[in-house]
Amino acid sequence: MQNTPEVSFTEITPTAKIAAETHGGRAKCLQRLIRLGLPVPQTVALPFGAVHGIAAGEYLDAARLLAPFGEGALVSVRPSSQDPDWGGPGAILNIGMNALRHAALSETIGRDAATALYLRFVQAFAVHVARLDAEIFDQTGDDGGNTGAGADRALASALAAYEAETDEPFPQDPAVQLAEVLRSMARAWQGTSARLLRQARGAPPDAGLGLVVQRMALGVGQGESGSGVIQFIDEITGIPRIKGRYLGQSQGRDALLKNEGTLYLTRDPRGPSLEERAPECFAALVEYGRVIRTRLREEMQIEFTIENGTLHVLDAVRLRRSARALLRSAVALAEDGIISREEALRRIDPHALTELLHPQVDPAARREVLLAGLGASPGAATGRIVFTAQAAQAAEAQGENAILVRRETTPEDVRGMHAARGVLTEKGGMTSHAAVIARGLGVPCIVGAGGMTLDLRGETITLENGRTLRAGQVVTIDGTSGQVLAGAADLLEPQLDDSFQRLMEWAGAACDIAIRANADTPDDARMARTFAAEGIGLCRTEHMFFQEDRLTLMREMIFADTPEDRQAVLERLLPLQRADFVELFRIMRGQPVCIRLFDPPLHEFLPATREGLRELAEALDLPLSDVIRRVDSLSEFNPMLGMRGVRLGITIPEIYEMQARAIFEATVETGHQGATVVPEIMIPLVSARREVEIVKTRIDSVAAAVRIETGADFTYRLGVMVETPRAALRAGDIAGNVEFLSFGTNDLTQMAYGLSRDDAGRFMSDYVQQGVFAEDPFHRLDTEGVGELLMIGAERGRRMRPDVVLAVCGEHGGNPESIDFCRQAGFDYVSCSPFRVPVARLAAAQFALRDARKVEKGNLKQKLRRVFRKAPG
Amino acid sequence: MQNTPEVSFTEITPTAKIAAETHGGRAKCLQRLIRLGLPVPQTVALPFGAVHGIAAGEYLDAARLLAPFGEGALVSVRPSSQDPDWGGPGAILNIGMNALRHAALSETIGRDAATALYLRFVQAFAVHVARLDAEIFDQTGDDGGNTGAGADRALASALAAYEAETDEPFPQDPAVQLAEVLRSMARAWQGTSARLLRQARGAPPDAGLGLVVQRMALGVGQGESGSGVIQFIDEITGIPRIKGRYLGQSQGRDALLKNEGTLYLTRDPRGPSLEERAPECFAALVEYGRVIRTRLREEMQIEFTIENGTLHVLDAVRLRRSARALLRSAVALAEDGIISREEALRRIDPHALTELLHPQVDPAARREVLLAGLGASPGAATGRIVFTAQAAQAAEAQGENAILVRRETTPEDVRGMHAARGVLTEKGGMTSHAAVIARGLGVPCIVGAGGMTLDLRGETITLENGRTLRAGQVVTIDGTSGQVLAGAADLLEPQLDDSFQRLMEWAGAACDIAIRANADTPDDARMARTFAAEGIGLCRTEHMFFQEDRLTLMREMIFADTPEDRQAVLERLLPLQRADFVELFRIMRGQPVCIRLFDPPLHEFLPATREGLRELAEALDLPLSDVIRRVDSLSEFNPMLGMRGVRLGITIPEIYEMQARAIFEATVETGHQGATVVPEIMIPLVSARREVEIVKTRIDSVAAAVRIETGADFTYRLGVMVETPRAALRAGDIAGNVEFLSFGTNDLTQMAYGLSRDDAGRFMSDYVQQGVFAEDPFHRLDTEGVGELLMIGAERGRRMRPDVVLAVCGEHGGNPESIDFCRQAGFDYVSCSPFRVPVARLAAAQFALRDARKVEKGNLKQKLRRVFRKAPG
Repeated sequence: MQNTPEVSFTEITPTAKIAAETHGGRAKCLQRLIRLGLPVPQTVALPFGAVHGIAAGEYLDAARLLAPFGEGALVSVRPSSQDPDWGGPGAILNIGMNALRHAALSETIGRDAATALYLRFVQAFAVHVARLDAEIFDQTGDDGGNTGAGADRALASALAAYEAETDEPFPQDPAVQLAEVLRSMARAWQGTSARLLRQARGAPPDAGLGLVVQRMALGVGQGESGSGVIQFIDEITGIPRIKGRYLGQSQGRDALLKNEGTLYLTRDPRGPSLEERAPECFAALVEYGRVIRTRLREEMQIEFTIENGTLHVLDAVRLRRSARALLRSAVALAEDGIISREEALRRIDPHALTELLHPQVDPAARREVLLAGLGASPGAATGRIVFTAQAAQAAEAQGENAILVRRETTPEDVRGMHAARGVLTEKGGMTSHAAVIARGLGVPCIVGAGGMTLDLRGETITLENGRTLRAGQVVTIDGTSGQVLAGAADLLEPQLDDSFQRLMEWAGAACDIAIRANADTPDDARMARTFAAEGIGLCRTEHMFFQEDRLTLMREMIFADTPEDRQAVLERLLPLQRADFVELFRIMRGQPVCIRLFDPPLHEFLPATREGLRELAEALDLPLSDVIRRVDSLSEFNPMLGMRGVRLGITIPEIYEMQARAIFEATVETGHQGATVVPEIMIPLVSARREVEIVKTRIDSVAAAVRIETGADFTYRLGVMVETPRAALRAGDIAGNVEFLSFGTNDLTQMAYGLSRDDAGRFMSDYVQQGVFAEDPFHRLDTEGVGELLMIGAERGRRMRPDVVLAVCGEHGGNPESIDFCRQAGFDYVSCSPFRVPVARLAAAQFALRDARKVEKGNLKQKLRRVFRKAPG
Repeated sequence: MQNTPEVSFTEITPTAKIAAETHGGRAKCLQRLIRLGLPVPQTVALPFGAVHGIAAGEYLDAARLLAPFGEGALVSVRPSSQDPDWGGPGAILNIGMNALRHAALSETIGRDAATALYLRFVQAFAVHVARLDAEIFDQTGDDGGNTGAGADRALASALAAYEAETDEPFPQDPAVQLAEVLRSMARAWQGTSARLLRQARGAPPDAGLGLVVQRMALGVGQGESGSGVIQFIDEITGIPRIKGRYLGQSQGRDALLKNEGTLYLTRDPRGPSLEERAPECFAALVEYGRVIRTRLREEMQIEFTIENGTLHVLDAVRLRRSARALLRSAVALAEDGIISREEALRRIDPHALTELLHPQVDPAARREVLLAGLGASPGAATGRIVFTAQAAQAAEAQGENAILVRRETTPEDVRGMHAARGVLTEKGGMTSHAAVIARGLGVPCIVGAGGMTLDLRGETITLENGRTLRAGQVVTIDGTSGQVLAGAADLLEPQLDDSFQRLMEWAGAACDIAIRANADTPDDARMARTFAAEGIGLCRTEHMFFQEDRLTLMREMIFADTPEDRQAVLERLLPLQRADFVELFRIMRGQPVCIRLFDPPLHEFLPATREGLRELAEALDLPLSDVIRRVDSLSEFNPMLGMRGVRLGITIPEIYEMQARAIFEATVETGHQGATVVPEIMIPLVSARREVEIVKTRIDSVAAAVRIETGADFTYRLGVMVETPRAALRAGDIAGNVEFLSFGTNDLTQMAYGLSRDDAGRFMSDYVQQGVFAEDPFHRLDTEGVGELLMIGAERGRRMRPDVVLAVCGEHGGNPESIDFCRQAGFDYVSCSPFRVPVARLAAAQFALRDARKVEKGNLKQKLRRVFRKAPG
């Protein structure tokens, strides 16, 4: 062993060579604190290589390491991984305690305190280093108090137990103790579970561990002694406020673990405070906090110990905060001139923004988890269980909050989903009907909750543990975590406060791709404006037909026997549809509104239950058998790939003609009211150029007719929703007839993979876990396959028509990685749920900043490539 | 008028400049007959330009045209379009008849005959040239006989009627008569309906018309006089046999139109014959037939007239034949050394071959059409209507022929389809389940017969005219035309005679792409051998699980609660599956067999009816509610895009492992019997490389286990069915792990278009009629979209792995145009239904010959490009 190479270590001084990449974040942070002149106890850092060597059996001269601390010093060892979030083994304190030191400390800090320190170390060493069972100390330690003879007996028992279990006396040599602690911590880092845990937190497989050996500030003994933590903002709200705990006669994180005897930090009517007990120390801590925030440019939590009236700063860690607090503090730092706006933008994870936009279950609240599924639409909501869309609407009418529970949802449930506060479905994946609609509506939603047996008729849910939930029972849906909680959990309301607005402004300024919102209703459109979307990128008109009065008309139209009958029904729908668009145009005035023509298969408008069929037969005054036959004849094997979109537009031209007329008449009407609108009309599910030509001809002639009838002129843009692989391949062909190509990446993904998003839930998690798909392609754009179709389509479209507008609408429009892909591919805008707009904008801003930095660093290639892509050629 | 340019004409002599491209096919053919020394009456040809000029009003000196025929000659005018199939106006005979000529002919051929000629001409001229109503002659002509005074009165009435209608006397000047006839025929060719008709037959919009003016051989008068037609093979069977009709005292096609008095040509016990009546003429005709066949290298029908004992050959036209006769005659011409084998191959339309492979409704038979749909699987069958697969099987067991009628078919119907003689479905398109399976089975099938109302419970079909068909009623399915005929229509049985086998041998020798068959069962495999398929390109293993005993096991497997239970069921399936493969390998010995691993969604194996569910619950000894819940939980929104193919293989690995074991054990067993088989294993529905890696690892380890257990070595090839657009795009990635890529163009088309083949039927015909799609992409490969995916996949696969085998399996493999695409893209083989193999082989041979010709003509580019594509780079 003596022949193996010796591991290196460095005492942390202001000038020592310490870096987070070699010694870990904690070592680096301690050096910064030392540089700032904070009273950090003497500390030695072991770099990653040294720790790796120790784990591999290389020799460490622990005596030499201990030498600078002086004879008889006690030390602690704490982990220092590159990123503090990656974790590491727990700290071990009081290394160096032995019989000799016990006797010596008994003189200075008192026998009981010294015994407590020794016992604490023996137990920690036994459990974490010698890997003995913690229970052996339970048996020996409960027969006396922790003072006087009882404490002595407990220590003696512990030492005896150690010896009995290991066949060796408890090591007395501090160097041996330290070497063993370091070896044990080095090995623990290599363990499988530790590796998996840190990889789950984003660490690379070969992440290194550093260790810091620090002289103990005891926190026990004479004079004011104790330990605590302090922070300067609220970790949930981000509002400036001194917060923390202090416990006299304690060490390490005791103040956080124990309630009895802890002090408030600031003066408090409820009890004694550190501010009163040790005003100088408190004042120093506040000043240190100020210095740290200003110089380390971050909100930190300081760990401190007072030893006989002297303040020691053991450590400072980045404060763990809610997204809201993170945002507020980043904006505050930028407004205080401590960091730049760009830096503030970079610091917020766009995904975390969703937390801000919806109520959340209070992280501090008690959670009784009943059931788990996929968190498909974030946010939390409490309400009474209902099992039908009708019941949800009834509840809303009575001012009650409902949680709609369905096996899966269908378009008929949409109004119920709107009325409900939250949605829970047994089936479905991240892009099932329920998930997509709920995200669009901003309603918290959990899908694929397979662990329940749903009896819709009996209106009960039976959980796997046999427990039953009935209609009317109160539950809380946590759409962020995917958990269903019992009763009404404590919720935190969202706050789109000044900080949020400020950050969004900064993001908007930094963005290099436009962000629009998908909005089907006036409510959606208003939400889009709230989040400052740059227009509507996708207005799905079919949702307008699910309202009660229109649904009946739609069904009449479907059952019409002749084009004339159909025309007659559509004429009754026209004013309703026109009113929809007028309202939408008014809300969005000055901004583009892209309207997708009718898309879904007609059978989505027909009832699925026998009850519904009977009602329909009555409403239409037809024999039930007729109705059943007609409904049957419209049923499809694969509705996704059936008679919908432009196929309906070609075969039943009256529908698109009515819609075009409604759009144009609404344009004229809004124009008369002083707001010029240039509507964008999008044709769905195109797979061949000729489809576009036929629809274009008809729409152009409707436009001409409306111009003549109204005497008003207007312009509009025609485009195609590129959602079949063939449309992407033939985009050049298609672009000749249109002004924009908006890629519907949901359907494009479904078709490229041959994978229905509604059916993928059954195996997607298996697939992602086994690494078959790196990620759910409905969640994050598959850049290799679907992405190539986008690139091909964009390139061919631009080649045919250099000014063609390129966009992505659909769920991916709100996914940061997918947005980056679209930016780089030269797309003009992405469109996503209103609630995703802030996420998308922040992500886009971050990518733009990243690229700008790259350019600054001389890497012009990236930019040139983009410019090249955007060029007409 | 005199100032317009004069139109040209040419007397047909052996050396005159006559070409089909300028004077039409008839003129050219007449020149050939003249060159062969046949007694063709003097003929003058008007080229296309002349006729066009006449229609446009240019001047024709008809007197000059008539001059060479001499004073008093009668002439006929017949059309001469470039291709005889394009049609043209009807012939007009006896031009030149007038009062003078009537008197003169009365002297030579008798008054009645002369009157008949004159009357015939007056009527033809009135109707076709002066465009009078034919009825005016009905009124005037029925008050006497057609001899003596009656005939005279009829003529006088006709002339009077003509004058009354036109206010002009019947033209007496032969030049005027001829000019009018020519103008009328020239104009008729320009008419809209004539143009549409010929375009439907393949003529270009600007196709020209030539006319031939021929001296009349009268066929009436003294001595042996008459007219007839003769051919030398049977037009249905192609067997050499003199056939035709002769009618004394007749003209033109009279012999074909009248029954009374016609003669047999050869000696016949049933009545008098031309051979007896005019042996010299008959002998001359036979000799002329021999000469024509040898020199014009085609089977022709000769039109002849005997005038006073002298034989005249008026015309010879290519004999219209059945596909069978065409094939037999082409092979006979080649075997007689008259044409080359290549020429014989070129002469047969591959599509027409299907006619040979199935029974056909006799074209001569009476057809009472009840209903029409899409002819989805060619051939004809007669049987009693049944409404369930069970009934079809019961009928088969009793030796009865059944026609299975379903709304649509599901895999549960496959055995019933096998048992039935024909299949009729209300729904579905050319690639619906029914259509694909029926083609594979070679069972005539009509799908998408929307004009019936099906009452499956009441077992009745109600037609649109209110007529009802019941179970047990006999109908005939004509899968070629898509018609359902009443009762038992006369059928012609298929004959794969020597000629067919000979042609196939020649095609095989000319082919430059291999043709394999899709074969799921031993019967299919034997059929594949019959048609000399070069192996099996697609064996769909799932069909093996629909047999009664296996279906029960499959269902047990689906309902298994643990992997162990599932494993146990699969172990019972293993010997059955192994036996399938042993039989298949034995039949196909020496040839490759490509086995696709299990593909369909599991719910296809579960019953759909309440009755079936109850039976299943009994069989599995489970509560019905449990069974319903399980079945429900497996149901999918879009089964096409759901949990099937490799997705099942990944999530329930036991199925593929069992199949791999069955394949390997069968390989070893067949090997022991002396036949080395190298099985090819194909993974379906792949969309990502990792799927292939996972399955490959498992299959390799099954192979290793079987090698150890059996002590026998064997090799196998692993490949991927490329049927998702993403697999095509990522083919490079995927090819690294496999030895072949077989493109499943059915699914690839569905996904590229976002179009379910089962649902496309509802609008596909609309789409094709409106020209939205040039052709049904499931029928003919969409080379622009799906084809590009094939090209991309092939190119990337070859780049990664130069020796990767490229194939197309699926319906397109049997489509000639699609095969040409595959050849040009450098594919190694196509695979199609056994019944399509001959079609595919002949088509491939024709394309190879075409390309070879191009190369001969110095166009080397094509070949070089192919070589380049196949090159490793």
